[in-house]
Amino acid sequence: MQLNAAQKLIQDHLLSGEMKAGEEIGLKIDQTLTQDATGTMVMLELEAMGIDRVKTEASAQYVDHNLIQEDFRNADDHLFLRSAAQKFGVYYSRPGNGVSHPVHMQQLARPGKTLLGSDSHTCANGCMGMLAMGAGGIDVTLAMAGEPYYVKMPQIMGIELKGKLPDWVSAKDVILEMLRRHGVKGGVGRVLEYYGPGVKELSAMDRHVIANMGAELGATATVFPSDEEIKHFLKQQGREDEWIELKADDGAVYDEHEEIDLSELEPLIAKPSSPENVVPVSEVAGEDIYQSYIGSSANPGYRDFAIASEIVKGKEIANGTSLDINPTSRQLLEQLVENGHIANLLSAGARMHQAGCNGCIGMGQAPATGKNSLRTTPRNFPGRSGTREDSVFLCSPETATASVLTGVITDPRTLDMPYPKVQEPTVFRKEGMLEEPPKDNSQVELEKGPNITTIPDFDPIEDNFDLPVLLKMGDNISTDEILAGGSRVLPYRSNIQKISTFAFEIIDDAYYEKAMKKRDEGGHMVAAGFNYGQGSSREHAALAPRYLGLKVVLVKDFARIHLQNLINFGILPLTFVNEGDYDMVRQEDVLEFRNIHQTIQNQHQFDIKLKGTDRTITVQHDLTKRHLDILLAGGIINWIKEKQ
Amino acid sequence: MQLNAAQKLIQDHLLSGEMKAGEEIGLKIDQTLTQDATGTMVMLELEAMGIDRVKTEASAQYVDHNLIQEDFRNADDHLFLRSAAQKFGVYYSRPGNGVSHPVHMQQLARPGKTLLGSDSHTCANGCMGMLAMGAGGIDVTLAMAGEPYYVKMPQIMGIELKGKLPDWVSAKDVILEMLRRHGVKGGVGRVLEYYGPGVKELSAMDRHVIANMGAELGATATVFPSDEEIKHFLKQQGREDEWIELKADDGAVYDEHEEIDLSELEPLIAKPSSPENVVPVSEVAGEDIYQSYIGSSANPGYRDFAIASEIVKGKEIANGTSLDINPTSRQLLEQLVENGHIANLLSAGARMHQAGCNGCIGMGQAPATGKNSLRTTPRNFPGRSGTREDSVFLCSPETATASVLTGVITDPRTLDMPYPKVQEPTVFRKEGMLEEPPKDNSQVELEKGPNITTIPDFDPIEDNFDLPVLLKMGDNISTDEILAGGSRVLPYRSNIQKISTFAFEIIDDAYYEKAMKKRDEGGHMVAAGFNYGQGSSREHAALAPRYLGLKVVLVKDFARIHLQNLINFGILPLTFVNEGDYDMVRQEDVLEFRNIHQTIQNQHQFDIKLKGTDRTITVQHDLTKRHLDILLAGGIINWIKEKQ
Repeated sequence: MQLNAAQKLIQDHLLSGEMKAGEEIGLKIDQTLTQDATGTMVMLELEAMGIDRVKTEASAQYVDHNLIQEDFRNADDHLFLRSAAQKFGVYYSRPGNGVSHPVHMQQLARPGKTLLGSDSHTCANGCMGMLAMGAGGIDVTLAMAGEPYYVKMPQIMGIELKGKLPDWVSAKDVILEMLRRHGVKGGVGRVLEYYGPGVKELSAMDRHVIANMGAELGATATVFPSDEEIKHFLKQQGREDEWIELKADDGAVYDEHEEIDLSELEPLIAKPSSPENVVPVSEVAGEDIYQSYIGSSANPGYRDFAIASEIVKGKEIANGTSLDINPTSRQLLEQLVENGHIANLLSAGARMHQAGCNGCIGMGQAPATGKNSLRTTPRNFPGRSGTREDSVFLCSPETATASVLTGVITDPRTLDMPYPKVQEPTVFRKEGMLEEPPKDNSQVELEKGPNITTIPDFDPIEDNFDLPVLLKMGDNISTDEILAGGSRVLPYRSNIQKISTFAFEIIDDAYYEKAMKKRDEGGHMVAAGFNYGQGSSREHAALAPRYLGLKVVLVKDFARIHLQNLINFGILPLTFVNEGDYDMVRQEDVLEFRNIHQTIQNQHQFDIKLKGTDRTITVQHDLTKRHLDILLAGGIINWIKEKQ
Repeated sequence: MQLNAAQKLIQDHLLSGEMKAGEEIGLKIDQTLTQDATGTMVMLELEAMGIDRVKTEASAQYVDHNLIQEDFRNADDHLFLRSAAQKFGVYYSRPGNGVSHPVHMQQLARPGKTLLGSDSHTCANGCMGMLAMGAGGIDVTLAMAGEPYYVKMPQIMGIELKGKLPDWVSAKDVILEMLRRHGVKGGVGRVLEYYGPGVKELSAMDRHVIANMGAELGATATVFPSDEEIKHFLKQQGREDEWIELKADDGAVYDEHEEIDLSELEPLIAKPSSPENVVPVSEVAGEDIYQSYIGSSANPGYRDFAIASEIVKGKEIANGTSLDINPTSRQLLEQLVENGHIANLLSAGARMHQAGCNGCIGMGQAPATGKNSLRTTPRNFPGRSGTREDSVFLCSPETATASVLTGVITDPRTLDMPYPKVQEPTVFRKEGMLEEPPKDNSQVELEKGPNITTIPDFDPIEDNFDLPVLLKMGDNISTDEILAGGSRVLPYRSNIQKISTFAFEIIDDAYYEKAMKKRDEGGHMVAAGFNYGQGSSREHAALAPRYLGLKVVLVKDFARIHLQNLINFGILPLTFVNEGDYDMVRQEDVLEFRNIHQTIQNQHQFDIKLKGTDRTITVQHDLTKRHLDILLAGGIINWIKEKQ
């Protein structure tokens, strides 16, 4: 059978399931990446699981998100992550080295491999002929521990690229065109595979731009072929021997079809406040701007900065504007310095920031109230810039740079100058970017600042127990209500004991105290209506109540990701068989659970008695054998421990 | 009479008073500088005073403190400051241009002139043969409005420099030696004047290092002669025609004497947590470090970064350390880029930050808990780095760089390498760093984001009125208790209406409401014991209660700066003649003030009746004619308005 490139990657890594769209498949993961915002919990999970050394071919820990260091916490996290990388056999990329995705591409990415990362833009490395996917923290922890990654077999959308980009139009305009056509849900359940004669016109870093923002279409992954251009890129990195060819077989078919003629594209821009609000730049030209922002994993290439430099060379940015340069890697920054590009940018009035994610994730460089900010970043959701009432546009470096020269949104084709040609350096290799872990980790101690604590041990659920209903809630309870996000709570993300004090406080600020009281008496349960646990995927919304003794959640139905998180942390998720029974359960009622270990393994439906009455409630679960194993072990951490 | 250089500068600008140590003198101010943290209030004061255009020879507004922009407020401040600079005829230095002191030195400093700045390190420009002094915001506002600056005539300490610095010892070690000898109060009430054969061995920027940290000795100013080296510096800046010679007359005398033989100095370091804890580096060598920090106005020169670059060239910093490079001006950063120094630093693993104050004032780069940070900055007060339990050492770039290579505190003389020679570029001139204000400002509108509001109008004190005592407080009430600092309150520094809601809340959280209720009924007063208004000099501690209707403060005695602030904002400051009367006044008593305008002008002591009783309290004031004029006008803003 003829396979496309995505199918080849999946087939090569298939450990369970069938390659039928919608079926669960288990994939072998060759490489992982973690960044600092999600990585501390991953490392604490590895510690709690008792993992001695990761089992992947290569895992890397990057520090790129929390670089500002307004107090000790970020710096402490960096030192903890370095010690954990050494302990668990993980490469460590120090703060200032740059954004995980381009650095990983330069240092470790290999065609034909799978990559799982605890960052939604992990898909960027699909540019290298990899199957690269973003996932939740504990999924990455499991992959590092050698477990398969389970995902539904996606549909493969084939996008044929033809022609060649015109002057002043670049890779960002290609992915903006995809967003214009398909919107932010157009990639859900899909792998986007690019092929055709237009592909060879795009450099490896151009493909990174396109693959990166597959995340904005909601895609599972983006796959580019591994061709001569990828071989050239690896040669620049001194890793030519790691190249293999990967391309669709002749005659391979796709589940869906799309076609883009590169030569017909024009400069595009996504208006506030969604990446899908795409229009031609000419449509909004002339609006005043406050800021242009160059950088992020959505425009990380040498050419993305060099083109900005060539455009501003010998000129000055408009008074009252800010040109913020955010280099994506130290390696690339050095090349830009050596070739005079940073000098051009500084001379024009640019502000140079350290290599990292920075303002792309709201860490600095927030725009002024109501002023337009043009960014080469991937996202412009409301408030993401740090300014609540922001007005952020997404565009190419050409458009952002042209606009900061004039002070108004400007179609770069209207600048009175020829399109600059950027000369890429021939060798990019930078040694010593990743610190190798020691072969012998027996002497390595985890270095934990006062805000980092070990994940507590959790016992498996008992066989017979009574539980009081500490909270009875309505429909659509979000994970923000279960455990708030934001700068008040999230700094304690590596401290379960502390973060648990915020659990459910929006719903009942006495919950923490009540739960702590019941904790040593056997724990508690909660009840709710429909769509329980909607919103953010944060695991702490399961972990924190679990620490406080939550053992069962009984609701009308669950939001998908939170359900998975409950199972992962050993909380039994049950639903009402008869929705009317919801009314029978009152806050502070006690339910009797009997012979639960056998029951949930043998039956999907069973009855629970309401203590002190003769009434029973019929409940059900939808757990697979794997889920039940995890649950009865007391959660994934215990389950892995037992497997060691 | 033979004069020293400081006396010449003072004599040339003397508008009132006599040059006798301790006497109040009024000085003509030629130049001012403001930075963004203090500048917004200065600009709002100019607006409130109705000033059309500043009357100084040159005033400049720098944006160097609040560069991080985590939300709209800093960016809004920048745009406001730019519009105000245009409105009032002030040069504007955009964010990313660098730290006020070195940029001012490069662009505007002139030998023989006076400079007043709303930043405590304004004294740095004393390196240029100027009388340069830091002051409170409204003092600078007044100077911009053309008013004299009043200060007590200082003692002049003459410091004779001899010999030449040995290899690996640099200007920072000279000022650390002064701190070792004299401590943080050794300069109080003094001008430190450097002279002698050693001066010519120090470049203009070396002298900046020494003059800058005169602030750490508590000095009123530091004065260096203007000699051939200053001429050379101005030539580099394309401003040779602005040079004049300034030096002490032969036979000039000093009030106090000191002598430093440069050739006998060794690398020094100030241990946590005071700039006066100075010891030889060798005494603490071998302690682990987390961070080395190069930059700030205390080591702003080209050579300070170039020497670091030459030391790390071809090497890598120790794993687990952070080398933070904070360029002090964009001009200098460009030169460092062009001459390969930034490439050396990046290649060694440095993190490059935008030009500005940054971590020196706790804006990022905070060290990890309990880890040593070596900084070339001027201050290591506890917590200033952003980390409460910090451990910050102050040292030269040589010492900081040597230590980040080895990972432990290192006397740079023990590095196995020759002392690098730094080649300074011959021309430094950078055009367009300062935006010139338009000649015609009639079309300029102040650009105020939602967090910036005009200072409200204040009526002069009435002649006859009754006031309730809203608060009766004890001794040692600090300005932090009157109006808290910190990140919860200070972001509202440009919004009197909003910041006033925090007034006295630490003492009585109902104060705001009670005061607002009384505001339209004629206002209120407060009473307290000794040392009222100690601590921070912030003007908001007078301005905010004034907005809420505070008219009289009656205490046992005042802290000096707060007393001045009360007068500046039109609040009548009175003290008890008989301390025992303090007990007679109770909270919520009402006092009767009669014929006050005449009374305070004619009498320093007078009686006030306690309403509803036949008791009187004898009170006094110590106001000069100038103070009385200001007070009766309703404060300095009204007073200046009337003079226009």
